Amino acid sequence: MSESANNEYDAVIVGGGPGGLTAGIYVARARMSSLLIEKGLFGGQMVTSDRYENYPGFPEGISGTELGEYMRQQAIKFGLKTINAEATGLRLEGEKKVVETTDGDFIAGTVIIAGGATRRKLGVPGEEEFAGRGVSYCAVCDADFFHDVAVAVVGGGNSAITEALHLAKFASKVTLIHRRDELRASKVMQEKVFAEPKIDFCWNSVIEKIEGEEIVSRLKLRNVKTEERYDLEVEGVFISTGIKPNTDFVKGVVPLDDAGYVITNIDMETEVPGIFAAGDIRHGSVRQAITAAGDGATAGFNAERHLSHYV
Amino acid sequence: MSESANNEYDAVIVGGGPGGLTAGIYVARARMSSLLIEKGLFGGQMVTSDRYENYPGFPEGISGTELGEYMRQQAIKFGLKTINAEATGLRLEGEKKVVETTDGDFIAGTVIIAGGATRRKLGVPGEEEFAGRGVSYCAVCDADFFHDVAVAVVGGGNSAITEALHLAKFASKVTLIHRRDELRASKVMQEKVFAEPKIDFCWNSVIEKIEGEEIVSRLKLRNVKTEERYDLEVEGVFISTGIKPNTDFVKGVVPLDDAGYVITNIDMETEVPGIFAAGDIRHGSVRQAITAAGDGATAGFNAERHLSHYV
Repeated sequence: MSESANNEYDAVIVGGGPGGLTAGIYVARARMSSLLIEKGLFGGQMVTSDRYENYPGFPEGISGTELGEYMRQQAIKFGLKTINAEATGLRLEGEKKVVETTDGDFIAGTVIIAGGATRRKLGVPGEEEFAGRGVSYCAVCDADFFHDVAVAVVGGGNSAITEALHLAKFASKVTLIHRRDELRASKVMQEKVFAEPKIDFCWNSVIEKIEGEEIVSRLKLRNVKTEERYDLEVEGVFISTGIKPNTDFVKGVVPLDDAGYVITNIDMETEVPGIFAAGDIRHGSVRQAITAAGDGATAGFNAERHLSHYV
Repeated sequence: MSESANNEYDAVIVGGGPGGLTAGIYVARARMSSLLIEKGLFGGQMVTSDRYENYPGFPEGISGTELGEYMRQQAIKFGLKTINAEATGLRLEGEKKVVETTDGDFIAGTVIIAGGATRRKLGVPGEEEFAGRGVSYCAVCDADFFHDVAVAVVGGGNSAITEALHLAKFASKVTLIHRRDELRASKVMQEKVFAEPKIDFCWNSVIEKIEGEEIVSRLKLRNVKTEERYDLEVEGVFISTGIKPNTDFVKGVVPLDDAGYVITNIDMETEVPGIFAAGDIRHGSVRQAITAAGDGATAGFNAERHLSHYV
C-alpha cells in the first residue's frame, strides 16, 4: 500500500463519530495511509450524550465527549490524520475515489462513509439548553435515567411509538405529544401504544418551550386547533420527529434507500468496490455507539483487504 | 414482556464473550428477563489476549480479562442472570425456543447464539497425551510455566503471532512453525514478530509428532516442500492453527455455512424468527472483540423488537 503523498491516501474516512474513528483505528493500525474528515466535533453524536451506560467496557458509564476523545487519541496514536472540513462530493476516477471537501479534493484508494445522521430538532427555546439534562433523542440510550418519573415523547411515527413503548418500562407515565389528531405509525404499533396504560396523549399539540432549573421540569404546549396553551410537568422529553442521514455528498455515486441511508451488505461494502459505510448513516443501523464502532472495525478491516487484493 | 418465571426467559444468550455480554447489556437494560449461559470463563476468547490495543475507548490498551470482567459487571448491573453450564441442544416449541444445557432446559422467547469458536487441534500423536504438560492452546494462561526454556508456536496468523510475542516475554527462545513460507498476519504484527530477536522460524513445516517423558521435550517436524524430517527441542508447544465455531448444539435448527458458522443477515437474525447470532460464531465475522460487541448490541436490540412484535 502506498505512503501518503500530498492529498492521496489509502483510506479516506468521512465522519468522526464512533464509526469513523474506529474505522480509523483499524486502517491506521493496518499501516494504511489514512485521513479522517470531520466537519464538526470529533465524537459525532456521542458528544451530545452526557453519559453512556451501555457502551461495553465502562460499567460505571462514560460521557460521550470522553469516549469520543479516547477513540480519537487511539486512532491518532496509530497514525490516522484528521482534518476539520466538510465533504461536499464524491466521484470515481477509475479505481480511485475523489472526496471533494471544503478544504480541497482528496484522492482515496478506499472510502469509508461514516458521517452519521442528524436528528431533527424542534427548534424551540430550552431544547439546546437542556440537551443531556432531560432532552434526549434516543430512548434506548437514555430511558434508564428516567425511572419512575413522568416523561414525554414528541412525534407520531413508528419511531416515536417505539420510543414511548420502551420508555413505558421505566417511567411512571409517558405522554405522547403529536401535532396531528392521529398517528402515522402502523396499525400494529398503534394497537400496542393504545393498549399501554402508562401512555397517554396530547393530540394536536406542539411544544413551544422547554423549561426547568437544573433539569427539565415542564413543557409549554400549544394546541394547534384551539390555540389553547397549557403546561405538562415532565422530567424528560424525547424528541422523535425525524432523522436525516448525512448523505447529500454521495448521491448518485453509491446506492441509497428511499430515506437516503447508504445501502451496504453485512461486510459494510456498498455496491461500489472500495466504498464502505459504517454507523448511523447505513441502512438498518440500530444507531448505537457500539454498533457504529463495530461497523467501523468491519469496514476498516475489509478496506485493508480490498486494497491488498485489488491494488 | 414476561417476568422470569422458573426456567423461562425473554432472552437466553449462549456464550459469555464480548458478543454475548453486550447482547446481555442490551436485553437486560431493555427490561427483558434474561439468562446468559457460559461453559467456561466469562470474557470468552478475550481472556486469552494479554492486551487489546484496538478496542475503541482504551487508548492505552486493556487486557482481555479486564475488558471481559468490565462487560460482565455492566450486564449484571442491568439485571442479566448468568450461569456456568454448557448448551447441548436447541429445539423449537411453537414460538418458544428451548435451550438444552448440562444444567437443565431453559425456555426462551428469543435466543442469541454467541458461543464463539474453539481453537482447532493438530490431531497428531502426543497432542492429547501432553495436553497441560507442554501442549497448550493459550499463551496467556500458560506462558508463565515456560520461563527461560525453548518453546514453539504453530500457525501463521495474527493469533499465532500474538502468542509468540507474548511467549517471548517468558521463554528463552520461541520458534514459529508455519506450513507456508509467509505469514497470514497483518503487516503491523509481522513487523513486530520479525523485529523480536527471541523469535525464529521454521517455514514450510508441520509437526508430525510431539514427544517427551513427563513433559514435552521434542517435536518431530517435516518440511512439506523438501520432505526433510527434523527435530526441534522444546519444552512447550502452543497450537494456534485454526478455529471451529461452537455450533454443534444448533445443528439442524438454524442454517450454518459449510464451516459450521451461523448464517445471519445484517440485523443478526438467523432464518428462524427469534433466534439471533453474534460474534465469532457467525458467518463473515472479522473476529474482533469490537465487532462481536457490535453484533451483540444489534442482536439484543432486535431481540427486544422481535418479542414486542414491533413492525
